[in-house]
Amino acid sequence: MATQASAAIDFNKGDGVIPVVALDHATHRVLMFAYMNREAFEETVATRRACYFSRSRNRLWRKGEESGNFQVVKEIRVDCDEDAVLLFVEQMGDAAACHTGHESCFYRRLENDEWREVEPRKVDPAKYGPGYGHHTKQAG
Amino acid sequence: MATQASAAIDFNKGDGVIPVVALDHATHRVLMFAYMNREAFEETVATRRACYFSRSRNRLWRKGEESGNFQVVKEIRVDCDEDAVLLFVEQMGDAAACHTGHESCFYRRLENDEWREVEPRKVDPAKYGPGYGHHTKQAG
Repeated sequence: MATQASAAIDFNKGDGVIPVVALDHATHRVLMFAYMNREAFEETVATRRACYFSRSRNRLWRKGEESGNFQVVKEIRVDCDEDAVLLFVEQMGDAAACHTGHESCFYRRLENDEWREVEPRKVDPAKYGPGYGHHTKQAG
Repeated sequence: MATQASAAIDFNKGDGVIPVVALDHATHRVLMFAYMNREAFEETVATRRACYFSRSRNRLWRKGEESGNFQVVKEIRVDCDEDAVLLFVEQMGDAAACHTGHESCFYRRLENDEWREVEPRKVDPAKYGPGYGHHTKQAG
């Protein structure tokens, strides 16, 4: 499923993946940071549901497939060098993009040399089962 | 200059660098995507001016040191895995974070399988001289 938009993206610079920032389409809040390979990008465009690439699991990560916290993609932007992408999404399910149950993964702010939690969780992630986590990094 | 906040960040996962997203502190618009190593992070915290790490040049990149388009850092956030950072900044100079002269590097939107430019430039980057570019990626 080669597309013109996909072909324009430089996946080689990052060993086959590009960085992706997901934002809430209504508030423009940054929700999370993840990666996509070309297949994930093309699936996201075709289905309008965010599909990332899990570097730790080395496979596609269809966000929300376990938890129901999937993301409907409203708009996609590319940067000047065609090697980073923004997704404007509607965060479905419990409105928690983060595996910790927070709306956003960026719920800690630097204050006096400490990372201080400044936002409450939206949901207790225990409800999704013991294996729940996000897949972009080392976490299960 | 080791600090507690810096020590909490996992720079090893990304071969010594972490991804960084800079946003306008007032509008929360995403301005650009770049990287930091530990030294760049600590300098940014200490000086409150955004300092990145240029992977192409393999050295610190003090944003705006050539063009005057530096960034005053108002707030710093870290993600759930301590391996990605948000900077809320005031973009100084010509209010153009992108080396193309746009406010944001993400000035193209996907429309019908094409990346369409949807924002005008703030400034003609030729004013900064022929060597001007940004340093995060392959560009000069």
